[in-house]
Amino acid sequence: MILDGKKVRDEILAKIKAKIAKEKLDIKLAIILVGDDEASKIYIKNKEKYCDMVGIAVEKYKLSSETEEKEIINLIDKLNNDESVTGIILQSPVPEGIDFNKCSNLIKPEKDVDGFTKNNIYYLYLGKKTVLPCTVKGIIKLLEYYKIPISGANVVIVGRGNIVGHPLSLAFENMDATVTLAHSKTQNLAEITKNADILISATGVKHLITKDMVKYGSTVIDVGVTRVDGKIYGDVDFENIKDIARYITPNPGGVGPMTVAMIIDNLVEMEERKNG
Amino acid sequence: MILDGKKVRDEILAKIKAKIAKEKLDIKLAIILVGDDEASKIYIKNKEKYCDMVGIAVEKYKLSSETEEKEIINLIDKLNNDESVTGIILQSPVPEGIDFNKCSNLIKPEKDVDGFTKNNIYYLYLGKKTVLPCTVKGIIKLLEYYKIPISGANVVIVGRGNIVGHPLSLAFENMDATVTLAHSKTQNLAEITKNADILISATGVKHLITKDMVKYGSTVIDVGVTRVDGKIYGDVDFENIKDIARYITPNPGGVGPMTVAMIIDNLVEMEERKNG
Repeated sequence: MILDGKKVRDEILAKIKAKIAKEKLDIKLAIILVGDDEASKIYIKNKEKYCDMVGIAVEKYKLSSETEEKEIINLIDKLNNDESVTGIILQSPVPEGIDFNKCSNLIKPEKDVDGFTKNNIYYLYLGKKTVLPCTVKGIIKLLEYYKIPISGANVVIVGRGNIVGHPLSLAFENMDATVTLAHSKTQNLAEITKNADILISATGVKHLITKDMVKYGSTVIDVGVTRVDGKIYGDVDFENIKDIARYITPNPGGVGPMTVAMIIDNLVEMEERKNG
Repeated sequence: MILDGKKVRDEILAKIKAKIAKEKLDIKLAIILVGDDEASKIYIKNKEKYCDMVGIAVEKYKLSSETEEKEIINLIDKLNNDESVTGIILQSPVPEGIDFNKCSNLIKPEKDVDGFTKNNIYYLYLGKKTVLPCTVKGIIKLLEYYKIPISGANVVIVGRGNIVGHPLSLAFENMDATVTLAHSKTQNLAEITKNADILISATGVKHLITKDMVKYGSTVIDVGVTRVDGKIYGDVDFENIKDIARYITPNPGGVGPMTVAMIIDNLVEMEERKNG
């Protein structure tokens, strides 16, 4: 069965839109962009599109690439203290000479939409209620939508990056899964992945996951994206695995669409928490 | 083969003692004890004993159980700024009404001997150089002493507490092991532990690890301690496993002795980092 990220995204956004209208929620996202990174502009446009769609206001702060760190810090301080601002994103990357981690860690945990600041990672580590990073939350919501149990499942995550693998392993473990985090230094990877009830790959290596690595009847989630000769590939050899796995994400069309929707979902959650 | 924690501890401490004397290192540990917890007094006495043995000064701050949080915060602030202080321990538990995490998180990361403050956990998560929690470091040093490879090994940790299981999984993964974190909600635990090159149990459940759960030729590390009918037991059924495992810790006499030695080791490391 295909885990249809677009369908689930659209349902989630429709529900949120109705909720915002009904409860007259006044949600505002502040986005800080420093410099002229082209990819960043596309990402931001995408975030704006979805915010607009559901009725969330976006306030953009475009700063020149000559901006000093001090100015960014002051702006974050101002937005932290602005009651009308629900969430803050400092778009990565920032120009050289600016310490991204230092700046973004100043965002209040309760306004940290991306869930990557020190405080939220620490809460995740402690197993406390936290703002989940969007890809992590997107995967969890997708599994929950299709009623795939996480508690007690053997979950193998391939790839230990700080955007997906690392925080996902903490989040799944907090949900009582037994998590194995595999990576490029893992030996006999196939033996390990064959034990997975839920196999998640986030490496950016084209078709790393082949059919001999997948347990019959399991769930396979493809987070990887890589470009080879102008064509985009996922980590998972979808065509040869789709009849072995019980559930599988397409890629594109699986985790990707869920990720942006989770920015919206986080903002609503944060606004509700703010209002008690 | 027995992993002899006492022997390794003694060798490490002897080396440190010689180093401190030779390099005339001026190391001071500040310990804050709030209230009258009897177990804490024993722990502190033990730490003092080893500091004394190698030539590290200890400054104790005994505060009454009526002490206000503000006072503790001021003391930590003073010790943070005192150049003569190498490391600070706020002894847990603290009396009710005092927020242990809030107070201990104020200890500067470079003076955090226990390695449990927010900053050091965040660095551990990011894979940056950090002060390792003592039990974690003790296990790593014990494995290194006996030349048991960690990189590329399949490591299964049973128990996901914040003192051992959780930080150990991050540290091992940073060292390129493939880590599975199992716990009370794990299903078919034996199947999982049988894949382990290195199996570490830290649950406090008497003889949870039986011989059918251990791979022939593997390494078994017992961190658990529990008391049943006045007798102390580890997590590992040592007698029945010692001929299956290639390396195994006794318990007591394995990880325990290493842990206290690592407070000393951390202090020396911190003093050296301070001096550039």
